[in-house]
Amino acid sequence: MKYSKLFGRTRHTPPCDADSVNAKLLTQAGFIEKLAAGIYNFLPLGHRVLTKVCNIIREEMNAVEGQEILMPALHPVDIWETTGRRKGMDEILYKTRASGDKEFVFGPSHEEVVTPLASKYIQSYKDLPLYVYQIQTKFRDEPRAKSGLLRGREFGMKDLYSFHTDEADLDRYYEIMKGAYLNVFNRCGLTAYVIEASGGAFSDKFSHEFSVETPAGEDVIIICKKCGIAQNIEVAKDHKDGLIYGKTLEDLKKGIPCPKCKGPLEEIKAVEAGNIFKLGTKFSEAFGLNFANNEGKLNHVVMGCYGIGTTRLVGTIVEAKHDEKGMIWPKSVAPYLVNLVSLGNDEDVLKEAENLYETLLKEGIEVLFDDRDAGAGVKLKDSDLIGIPLRIVISKRTLESKGVEWKERTNAESEIVATLSLVKKIKEFQK
Amino acid sequence: MKYSKLFGRTRHTPPCDADSVNAKLLTQAGFIEKLAAGIYNFLPLGHRVLTKVCNIIREEMNAVEGQEILMPALHPVDIWETTGRRKGMDEILYKTRASGDKEFVFGPSHEEVVTPLASKYIQSYKDLPLYVYQIQTKFRDEPRAKSGLLRGREFGMKDLYSFHTDEADLDRYYEIMKGAYLNVFNRCGLTAYVIEASGGAFSDKFSHEFSVETPAGEDVIIICKKCGIAQNIEVAKDHKDGLIYGKTLEDLKKGIPCPKCKGPLEEIKAVEAGNIFKLGTKFSEAFGLNFANNEGKLNHVVMGCYGIGTTRLVGTIVEAKHDEKGMIWPKSVAPYLVNLVSLGNDEDVLKEAENLYETLLKEGIEVLFDDRDAGAGVKLKDSDLIGIPLRIVISKRTLESKGVEWKERTNAESEIVATLSLVKKIKEFQK
Repeated sequence: MKYSKLFGRTRHTPPCDADSVNAKLLTQAGFIEKLAAGIYNFLPLGHRVLTKVCNIIREEMNAVEGQEILMPALHPVDIWETTGRRKGMDEILYKTRASGDKEFVFGPSHEEVVTPLASKYIQSYKDLPLYVYQIQTKFRDEPRAKSGLLRGREFGMKDLYSFHTDEADLDRYYEIMKGAYLNVFNRCGLTAYVIEASGGAFSDKFSHEFSVETPAGEDVIIICKKCGIAQNIEVAKDHKDGLIYGKTLEDLKKGIPCPKCKGPLEEIKAVEAGNIFKLGTKFSEAFGLNFANNEGKLNHVVMGCYGIGTTRLVGTIVEAKHDEKGMIWPKSVAPYLVNLVSLGNDEDVLKEAENLYETLLKEGIEVLFDDRDAGAGVKLKDSDLIGIPLRIVISKRTLESKGVEWKERTNAESEIVATLSLVKKIKEFQK
Repeated sequence: MKYSKLFGRTRHTPPCDADSVNAKLLTQAGFIEKLAAGIYNFLPLGHRVLTKVCNIIREEMNAVEGQEILMPALHPVDIWETTGRRKGMDEILYKTRASGDKEFVFGPSHEEVVTPLASKYIQSYKDLPLYVYQIQTKFRDEPRAKSGLLRGREFGMKDLYSFHTDEADLDRYYEIMKGAYLNVFNRCGLTAYVIEASGGAFSDKFSHEFSVETPAGEDVIIICKKCGIAQNIEVAKDHKDGLIYGKTLEDLKKGIPCPKCKGPLEEIKAVEAGNIFKLGTKFSEAFGLNFANNEGKLNHVVMGCYGIGTTRLVGTIVEAKHDEKGMIWPKSVAPYLVNLVSLGNDEDVLKEAENLYETLLKEGIEVLFDDRDAGAGVKLKDSDLIGIPLRIVISKRTLESKGVEWKERTNAESEIVATLSLVKKIKEFQK
């Protein structure tokens, strides 16, 4: 893509109402544009990142036998009354009156849809376990929509629902899903911790959150980097049993060791990037989702649900991966792998840059070519702000050395690489 | 995918409330499931088709320099008041009151979002032309939601918006887009005609519809199959000039020849599958979307918009491609290329079928393996209903001939193909 044609330019300054690092950087770099509080447009660069994040999630869900479906956003209110959540979640539900004066709810979650849907296909234990997921848009009327993509009123989400014959099978899959979630975050370049959490409106049962370490996180969690156990401060204070539960915040500040491995405990700032819930039979009871066991007796299906905010994950990556110059995209989710930049108006430089752009395209390398008629200062500053992993600069100086300047976003140093070996080196870098 | 594990089974009978061929067949075959009038779940088979349809559209939009973005569904009402469409489209708008009592509209279209968005990036003629599109969910409160996926309250849509310096440049791109649209329909296995249409709420200007020939279409159009000109009966009656305009329905019934090529005119039933509009400066005037021309003078940007309903297109394909036994998917959008079916409980048959399934997966061939313990009648009937292009049957009889039964969905005849040459033959079929 040529930058001169790209929809969504960098700005000199971040928007004055940006309330977080991710909103500031993503908007300033032309990845997103706010329509209203908690409601964002994704421009081409942002859309490319979001697509890559979704595809990583999709691959990991498919790998644990998730089947992709797509459920509607518009829900007849009666299914929300069946579960009591029409009242229980009233404050965050967007409601509308359709023709005929029927009330509809815009789905903040899909247990109310997936459970009766599953009941049409689940009859016997032979139909279980079953795992279905969607990547879809959710609506929640957050009174305090804030933190850019971290807490939106309209946001993308992957939600997977699992259906089991019994708690033991749910427990088995729940552990598998923990691994799948850690894979997702790891592939997005993040360090995530699994922490026990209260389920809120979604569950009275056991649940876990996945917290990603970021300097500007909303939560404070206690972690042991040696053995990996982690706990939310608030939850830790409430619990009387378990690993690091039962310790007061004051205890923890005194530097007590990890009760599991005796390693040092640390407090870090983190952002919640996903959560998983053991729903049990709450929803299957509400909708009569039963199965016949091997003796023909009807039992309630046992359910779990597993969410990752896709747009939130894009924001989380920015929160975790940036410096004072701009964003630093991991290769796996970067909008482009290479940012090709031509400096100056020398005809040979422009010609060589154009040739190299064509070569990289032919080689199937994702490249954003800054072909603007702009000064070196602007172009290099924008390149850092956008945060593409590899910057390749062509200038009169590099041409004289029959090479290009190679600079990785995570590395302060640059080097001259011979043009002839460039494609090979990029392909190695890509791995 | 093994059919025994698939979410979404065939039913013995279609749902009693199915009001169209597409709703009947897609539901009976387990591709979709209705949640409410005009609101559908997409199950794995339906989701696979939808994904393929979206990817074809995406490729064709990218080929005409469209840049993919994603705009929100939730719109502050003031942008709809700016254009007067808060009142003008009142009947079909879903509205909601958010916290703070602000009114929001769920977007039935996105001119109100894309125009102010574009105004943040378009300054001079150098920023034009610009083409942006999204594949996103739309909401329209259709009082008569009907015809399955053809007229939904919640539906998928690709909407592209083009921005130009003048009418001439819009005209140029408009013709390019006609070609892109015909490519989309052609790749989906459909025969589409471009017809002039009235723009309704979307435009006071020139617009065209793309009509796809189907036996159960909502519209009647007049076509000349020799030269390809086409016209909606209603529009033809109103017009006084042009090719077949000015002829009354009665004239046409008398069998007058095509005014362009003298070929015979026919009336066919058709479904509208896409539409394109020359919006002119209606929206750029409303939102002050201007550009500086090469003399520095400010002009209104000239706009076009181009829609294809993605979920509607899935329904249209079914309307156009089915027989009394079920659906007939074109290879390009079929949920799977091959439906592998084992018949009987002979151990050698089961083993060979399992081996062949593994082989096809390894070869990267998309295969749905009907591994159920069910009778031949049920399995073959379901295979026809689901409509996968190629059915491969393994039975005791085919094993004896060291082959499999090869039957294409569009062909009444079957043949025995040697197992050894099967993969090669499937790969040829796939092309």
